[in-house]
Amino acid sequence: MPVRWSDMDAYGHVNNARFLTIYEEARVALFFQGAREHGLGSFEEGIVIARHEIDYLRPVDYGDPVRVEMWISEQRAASFTVSYELFDDGELAGRAKSVCVPYNLADGHPRRLSADEREFLRPYLAA
Amino acid sequence: MPVRWSDMDAYGHVNNARFLTIYEEARVALFFQGAREHGLGSFEEGIVIARHEIDYLRPVDYGDPVRVEMWISEQRAASFTVSYELFDDGELAGRAKSVCVPYNLADGHPRRLSADEREFLRPYLAA
Amino acid sequence: MPVRWSDMDAYGHVNNARFLTIYEEARVALFFQGAREHGLGSFEEGIVIARHEIDYLRPVDYGDPVRVEMWISEQRAASFTVSYELFDDGELAGRAKSVCVPYNLADGHPRRLSADEREFLRPYLAA
Amino acid sequence: MPVRWSDMDAYGHVNNARFLTIYEEARVALFFQGAREHGLGSFEEGIVIARHEIDYLRPVDYGDPVRVEMWISEQRAASFTVSYELFDDGELAGRAKSVCVPYNLADGHPRRLSADEREFLRPYLAA
Repeated sequence: MPVRWSDMDAYGHVNNARFLTIYEEARVALFFQGAREHGLGSFEEGIVIARHEIDYLRPVDYGDPVRVEMWISEQRAASFTVSYELFDDGELAGRAKSVCVPYNLADGHPRRLSADEREFLRPYLAA
Repeated sequence: MPVRWSDMDAYGHVNNARFLTIYEEARVALFFQGAREHGLGSFEEGIVIARHEIDYLRPVDYGDPVRVEMWISEQRAASFTVSYELFDDGELAGRAKSVCVPYNLADGHPRRLSADEREFLRPYLAA
Repeated sequence: MPVRWSDMDAYGHVNNARFLTIYEEARVALFFQGAREHGLGSFEEGIVIARHEIDYLRPVDYGDPVRVEMWISEQRAASFTVSYELFDDGELAGRAKSVCVPYNLADGHPRRLSADEREFLRPYLAA
Repeated sequence: MPVRWSDMDAYGHVNNARFLTIYEEARVALFFQGAREHGLGSFEEGIVIARHEIDYLRPVDYGDPVRVEMWISEQRAASFTVSYELFDDGELAGRAKSVCVPYNLADGHPRRLSADEREFLRPYLAA
């Protein structure tokens, strides 16, 4: 994932809120673009974030792209949890978890994961 | 806290990462500007975020400002935790916690809270 | 207009791209919220920006809100130009112009200003 | 240049202010990182933007990266102008110009281009 110069704040490091944007970009690439390529558009029509937990281990600076590893650490009937690790120059610099809730934007209600969605998530499930 | 039109994402609601920016603005106003008015510049010279937890309860839209309540929910020798509640139109729309670590930016090390800093934090400590 | 701590970049001043966000917030408050209060929702359904010109006269820092003055410097059949001046601590710190084109988002075409829109813009027209 | 999902605004297209961020990233990569690789750190220590002009020709959406072409369209004693064209799916979607002023951040004054800086800029000068 590329880091933008404008992601830095007045301290000269990537701003802590921007880590969330970087994790979001990784997640969106998988659940929107990646799922769409598998003919699955239902995530794009609505995933609501219920909770994030973000741990900051090292400051990250503008320069080379960072690497984000991502997996599904928990799957329930109507939610799943994405876990992330962010590596900068090969060193673990951050960790996060996002609880994602499939959502029907039209009627404004959370909904259960469909069979197709469970199928799509399976290869990313951590043992 | 004002919400910007540009805080909304393609879903037409305030983007989840921007909640963190709104909480950050509330925190910075207290620990940078507020503390400086009490003659305390040491927070501004460096507070590092070690962890955030953010819960999303309702979508927030562009329009009226939101109200953020903030208090110190935990204080340790070398860290403190800021807790927030965000209200939109009088309804609780989000909750968050930030673990803050005073930091010596010059030598790159965390440090203990000073007596002046503890004094400044005291009125915000929840019972 | 409030300035956010996160508007600053690694130079410790408000980032030049964020000036555009601050001008945008002023413009949106007038053309979306202000117009809606006059029963005019057509700007909100689509104004496209065709061009911006932005001059930077002084750096702006995080702290007190800045003041943005705004007027319509030109009105044509199918576009209008918003001019802005941004004052920080009473001093002119920036100037900008935005060429705005009313747009029919549904069919993807620019359109002429309606009589109601011309009526709404009239008090903001500079002599 | 990659486009982020979060670059989109409530209209579902890349926000007009974010174009400026995308141009900024292209410019910074050249003048900070690129120049540093040539042993030239003086741009990074301070380039101030005096003016931007930005033309929007087509909406840009989240998805594939966009291509930004960039050249020096004017060079003066104490400023230079960067011109950009942004292509999305092979089509010209935007154009911009940035007037850049080398700046001595330490004493707060603009300064003339050095011989090394002129040398670095030469290959990018349009005929």
